Amino acid sequence: MEKTNIAIVGMGTVGTGVARLLLDHGDRTSRHAGRILWLKKAVVRDLSKPRDIDLPDGVVTDSIADVINDPEITVVVQLIGGLEPARTIMLDLMAAGKDIVTANKALLAQHGPELFNRARELGRTIAFEASVAGGIPIIANISQCLSANQIVSLEGILNGTSNFIVTQMDERSASYDDVVRQAQKLGYAEADPAMDVDGSDAAQKLAILAHLAFGATVDWNDIPRVGIDGLAADDLRYARQLGYRIKLLGVAKLAEDGLELSVGPTLVKIGTPLAEVRDAFNAIRVIGDAVGPVFYHGLGAGQMPTASAVVADLIDTAVGRTRLTFQTLEYFSIDQPPRVKLRDADTLVGRYYFRLPVSNHPGTLASIATVLAKHGISIASVIQHESPGDDNEADVTIDPVTLVVMTHAATAGAARKATDEIESLSTVTGPVVRLQVKD
Amino acid sequence: MEKTNIAIVGMGTVGTGVARLLLDHGDRTSRHAGRILWLKKAVVRDLSKPRDIDLPDGVVTDSIADVINDPEITVVVQLIGGLEPARTIMLDLMAAGKDIVTANKALLAQHGPELFNRARELGRTIAFEASVAGGIPIIANISQCLSANQIVSLEGILNGTSNFIVTQMDERSASYDDVVRQAQKLGYAEADPAMDVDGSDAAQKLAILAHLAFGATVDWNDIPRVGIDGLAADDLRYARQLGYRIKLLGVAKLAEDGLELSVGPTLVKIGTPLAEVRDAFNAIRVIGDAVGPVFYHGLGAGQMPTASAVVADLIDTAVGRTRLTFQTLEYFSIDQPPRVKLRDADTLVGRYYFRLPVSNHPGTLASIATVLAKHGISIASVIQHESPGDDNEADVTIDPVTLVVMTHAATAGAARKATDEIESLSTVTGPVVRLQVKD
Repeated sequence: MEKTNIAIVGMGTVGTGVARLLLDHGDRTSRHAGRILWLKKAVVRDLSKPRDIDLPDGVVTDSIADVINDPEITVVVQLIGGLEPARTIMLDLMAAGKDIVTANKALLAQHGPELFNRARELGRTIAFEASVAGGIPIIANISQCLSANQIVSLEGILNGTSNFIVTQMDERSASYDDVVRQAQKLGYAEADPAMDVDGSDAAQKLAILAHLAFGATVDWNDIPRVGIDGLAADDLRYARQLGYRIKLLGVAKLAEDGLELSVGPTLVKIGTPLAEVRDAFNAIRVIGDAVGPVFYHGLGAGQMPTASAVVADLIDTAVGRTRLTFQTLEYFSIDQPPRVKLRDADTLVGRYYFRLPVSNHPGTLASIATVLAKHGISIASVIQHESPGDDNEADVTIDPVTLVVMTHAATAGAARKATDEIESLSTVTGPVVRLQVKD
Repeated sequence: MEKTNIAIVGMGTVGTGVARLLLDHGDRTSRHAGRILWLKKAVVRDLSKPRDIDLPDGVVTDSIADVINDPEITVVVQLIGGLEPARTIMLDLMAAGKDIVTANKALLAQHGPELFNRARELGRTIAFEASVAGGIPIIANISQCLSANQIVSLEGILNGTSNFIVTQMDERSASYDDVVRQAQKLGYAEADPAMDVDGSDAAQKLAILAHLAFGATVDWNDIPRVGIDGLAADDLRYARQLGYRIKLLGVAKLAEDGLELSVGPTLVKIGTPLAEVRDAFNAIRVIGDAVGPVFYHGLGAGQMPTASAVVADLIDTAVGRTRLTFQTLEYFSIDQPPRVKLRDADTLVGRYYFRLPVSNHPGTLASIATVLAKHGISIASVIQHESPGDDNEADVTIDPVTLVVMTHAATAGAARKATDEIESLSTVTGPVVRLQVKD
């Protein structure tokens, strides 16, 4: 049987998982690849660091040159995170004739066009299934399995850390800070989880998916995004009273005047599939014009789910499928103009949830309703709890001066302007929380 | 741009959908295939029959010879149902040098080894994404996307007609016969829905998936199967009281001593993803040893979802991916021994639901519990409603002499023997209903 020599650059959690699949399950990978996938080198930063895996003699090295200068190694799993030196290493590896498999979504979201064009110039390929949604094979599904469709919309829970935090806050009524600490202990959140909880990670993944599904070329920084870092336990509780859960949702929707892209905490109706995605799971709902809705649910991160995606890419690359797909689809091609434009964020239409701290005086609701009406926003429902001072003990645990308003459909621009104006009312005693509501 | 000439054999619902995608969306298919997918011929049985689609001049023919003898046509979508003449036509088309795309699961489940071996001899390919689960791309997901995994289990709602019937019976408390008539009116069920409702269709699909996921070579007739045709509204109602819905589930599970395969109406816990699959949707839950659980949900049938799968196969075939996959995986190879054996059905372990019509006498429950205990089956819960004659009016609408028993885990053999013995008790007044309960 023929052999494909492979190197792994970066032996962290995922790299170790990939090595495990290659070393322990060679029968399986060779059956699916039609050739032996042979782990020849594993590049680590620190040779002295203890590892969870026994690698055969001669495999571990701390020199990337051992990979670059070995012409027998034809495929490299590049698992170094961040932008540099990951970018330079990837360019060097491709220049040395290696095909790439990577899980680095930040790198692709930032430097996709440069890296993919360079790969094409050099006759190389980049496979990146593991960069989005961990074990859910959404890249292959959009690029190949659903290729008969114009994708119409794509909504997903793309950041497992955020979803874990939100689920735990919701189910245990715990505070944001407590849950973040717990997530760090369990290994679900980095020591610095900023990119996860501020929506950046989800926006980077959404930018990649939007390119595959819609031909959009978008700087992920341009995607309007709100994280879960400002989410209060109150909002989760009010949402539940209204029949919703709050999820950090990435949305890409095609309309006549362009593509809508956004990332933000969103009220999702309880009982619908996206609302029931718990903890570190990811899920994506894709609607194609032929296939209709297709829903995917799986582990969005973790050692072996991500390694599963990396090794599937290794098999595809070894079989030759990646080359055919890569040549045909021309991902991130600088020569191809984007097929869609982004819509002006202010024109996006959706329903909104407002939580307002108000003074408990006659006319408060009227003044707020007047501002909303002025901006063409009509109210769908209101929760206003009586103050405990009203001798009503039923709701004493709930902030007596909180008003929650659910609206009918309105543009984001109108909602934003209304929020500013409402915050300037004398009856409103603090900042307004505004969240999107999924249709 | 190069061109791949295509023929469709069989212009029913799905064939018309495929033609529509090829004719109306040539820009999309050529972008994804890197070449033009050109519909050159469409073979129909009756030229005079009115059609829902305007085909260009010269495309329609009633002669398969127009396809077989045209060397420019290299890929044929074979959409004739049933076993013959579908099998002979497929063999003739392959002998004439055509690659095949098909949705005919009955043909593959029955004649897979013969057809696939012949394809390999002739250097041809067979793509069959549309044969299982309609728009859900489960074939590609198991064969490629999850190829780093040993699939551990696979559970699915694979027959949309049955799921539609069961959902409607459950939600509208309608009788089986009423709902079948409604399903026929809506086009969800054939005039003769026997293969759908007796579990045969699901067993054929499960046989194909079991081959891909586990390397099992199994005659679909050997899969223990029960349909929904004997399901009573009572069982749906009792299941709901116990916190379950009943779904026609196809299950393939790997154990040390072999592969468990079965199709049957199964109690699935309300709130779990499979329980919430409604109407004509299909869903499949796959567990891989690396990726963990992955859940897929989508339309299991219908014109455009199925056409979506067919055209994805056409694109894969035109790009060349199908050839690589086909050569590597050696589906249904006569030369390759099956990688797993089927477990003896009697040894399968699961929980059971029993519904028993009993006489309302002291000792009835004791006699039944004794039989169960004798076979090592322990009782988890019981529903026994008092008779209206007991002056208790709370449950007068419920059959007064019905006993429902949920058991803990037991072997299928023990459950079967216990059933036989219970039915012979004098206190049991009619046949016992026995259904599986999903863990």
